[in-house]
Amino acid sequence: MPLDTALRARASRVIPGGLWGHLNAARLPEGYPQFFARAEGCRLWDADGREFIDFMCSWGPIVLGHRHPVVEEAARAQAARGDCLNGPAPVLVELAELLVATIPHAEWCLLAKNGTDATTSCVTVARAETRRRKILVARGAYHGAVPWCSPSIAGVTEEDRAHLIPFDYNDAASLEAAAGCAGADLAGIIVSAFRHDMGVALELPDPAFARAARAAADAAGAALILDDVRAGFRLDLGGSWETVGVRPDLAAYSKAIANGHALAAVTGAERFRDAATRVFTTGSFWCTAVPMAAAVATLTELRRLDGPARMRAMGERLRAGLDRLAARHGLAIRNSGPPAMPLMQFADDPGARLGEAFCAAALRAGAYFHPRHNMFLSCAHGEAEIDAALEAADAGFAAVARLG
Amino acid sequence: MPLDTALRARASRVIPGGLWGHLNAARLPEGYPQFFARAEGCRLWDADGREFIDFMCSWGPIVLGHRHPVVEEAARAQAARGDCLNGPAPVLVELAELLVATIPHAEWCLLAKNGTDATTSCVTVARAETRRRKILVARGAYHGAVPWCSPSIAGVTEEDRAHLIPFDYNDAASLEAAAGCAGADLAGIIVSAFRHDMGVALELPDPAFARAARAAADAAGAALILDDVRAGFRLDLGGSWETVGVRPDLAAYSKAIANGHALAAVTGAERFRDAATRVFTTGSFWCTAVPMAAAVATLTELRRLDGPARMRAMGERLRAGLDRLAARHGLAIRNSGPPAMPLMQFADDPGARLGEAFCAAALRAGAYFHPRHNMFLSCAHGEAEIDAALEAADAGFAAVARLG
Repeated sequence: MPLDTALRARASRVIPGGLWGHLNAARLPEGYPQFFARAEGCRLWDADGREFIDFMCSWGPIVLGHRHPVVEEAARAQAARGDCLNGPAPVLVELAELLVATIPHAEWCLLAKNGTDATTSCVTVARAETRRRKILVARGAYHGAVPWCSPSIAGVTEEDRAHLIPFDYNDAASLEAAAGCAGADLAGIIVSAFRHDMGVALELPDPAFARAARAAADAAGAALILDDVRAGFRLDLGGSWETVGVRPDLAAYSKAIANGHALAAVTGAERFRDAATRVFTTGSFWCTAVPMAAAVATLTELRRLDGPARMRAMGERLRAGLDRLAARHGLAIRNSGPPAMPLMQFADDPGARLGEAFCAAALRAGAYFHPRHNMFLSCAHGEAEIDAALEAADAGFAAVARLG
Repeated sequence: MPLDTALRARASRVIPGGLWGHLNAARLPEGYPQFFARAEGCRLWDADGREFIDFMCSWGPIVLGHRHPVVEEAARAQAARGDCLNGPAPVLVELAELLVATIPHAEWCLLAKNGTDATTSCVTVARAETRRRKILVARGAYHGAVPWCSPSIAGVTEEDRAHLIPFDYNDAASLEAAAGCAGADLAGIIVSAFRHDMGVALELPDPAFARAARAAADAAGAALILDDVRAGFRLDLGGSWETVGVRPDLAAYSKAIANGHALAAVTGAERFRDAATRVFTTGSFWCTAVPMAAAVATLTELRRLDGPARMRAMGERLRAGLDRLAARHGLAIRNSGPPAMPLMQFADDPGARLGEAFCAAALRAGAYFHPRHNMFLSCAHGEAEIDAALEAADAGFAAVARLG
């Protein structure tokens, strides 16, 4: 019996459903492992020793590559002094100054542990500053896993979402109508870096929509909140809406900020500084020094490498290769999203049956893709790794072609 | 200029109020440092190199002592393989089995990063299972730092707390009255391990109150939720209410679970397993393997040492010494709380003016105490360290005596 199977059986007895949340392999095509033994660069090994070229990067956190030597050396050096203390280590100041210097809208920052901590703090700070309640949220957008924003409604009360007003991403008219509904009670507008709802094609932000969101927030004196948890530091070091020329008042970061070390951040404009002082936001591990040292190393290395440009180039190479191979197999595909966070879907594939067959076959050939969720590239993905992954993709397309 | 002063000045420009949350040194007596350079066992050093015997243990996480070799070796060994992967490492199963074997009420567990994640998940799971809304919460109790439970109301809407009903800790009649108010809509009762409201004497749970809470939950078919975030694994490895013979349905853990590595856990009874499957609770770092390896090592070491007994004994030695010294200085004090999580207050000391003078003088003499919040002992505190801290306390009492 594979070790993965044995571990799943044991896990199912002591963890509800075998695993909580987004890393539950039950949501993946057949053959995907649940448990992993190790990782290095853009490669990872499951508990049974199978090796994969990784296109999920731990669903975003790994931006430089697994076990990156510069980041891990910074983490080790800080750990040798101390991590969880009665207050922060000096590296907090270094990191906070680096974030403020790197992100144009940021005059200050708060740190936390989860992306959900950061999005929740943004909403709370927006309400505290404006002394209003309504928050505009795009239909289907993911902003975290607590009652106000969870994709599940189990255990959620009506009041948890009482002051949310929906709009459609990239639809300026619907956003303006939602702002009209909120009227004088509009506290904030929260937007994802791009539209990345599960299972549908990704959409980059329309610059006109982004400007409309900025204008609606300005007209009402409300906060424009950028949820950059998933895309932050992968598309643009200054924030993912720098590409469309729109700056938020508050932004939420996590995932890639420390190359896999647990950290999140809120950055904010001057106007919201006092409110951020009044909101009580804290956690037992929010001042730990090791993830901060890892974040300084990660952001410095991303700047040195021009990480976003490198990931974009490798994402474009992957995308071009997928297009070429699909055409060769006579298959119609659709690539969407930013090249560094791509999604590939088959045409006429409701339920992603073809996507699942593609992924399952590519996995057997050594590439870990995802059929429904945007994937992630890292700076450890070079031309050789992309080309090796394309060989695995070729096996995936062949499997789909055989399905007829 | 002290380095701490320079760091605070820089921090105040890029972090609202200089620091978020409970580790902000502005809430501490004069002379307390904000920034720390390193730590080892029960000693820590501030950014200016001053050495202290530590009685806050990072406000709870450090239970074996800073940089504990067994824990750090387990963390290093896991980090050398991988930490943040596309799923958990096998150590997840080991930890989940260990938690279920250690905590009598637990049939399953979920992991997370913050104590607030764990308390929020408990409340959501209780609502999902019962399909009801009301949660009973003790007045003044701290259960986390998000809108439903934050001690600040900045940015909080009325709806965030719509279904909370207050009662008084250790007052069975008030709890039963609150349950009566909830009626058929009672989803859960959340209780701290002991009463540890900031600034007032600590109160151990009255066994009759604990039994009344269990009975009220049972009578309504609601969940009894133990918030063991602060006290868990320090008072009793099986859960802090084992001492009063009452078992919860759901419990929240964090702080001490991995000796300073970021981790939290929910443990639950069988009845709540299905609801825990339906609630979507997740985070980017909730499957990271290093904190899990640290937790296995921490819990194993705590069991091997009988950590709770050891911390209790050293806490009793500290308390007896404080009583003896206070009497010698002609000062009236009141010790409260579990010996491993003690609070010492002066009689007739509104605003803790005497407590602050005591702490400031003891700090100068090398002991890091707290005047208002419960303190924490660790397994690294031995007789020599307690006795050295009592010498510092003697200087603190002398300073208070001089105030007349």
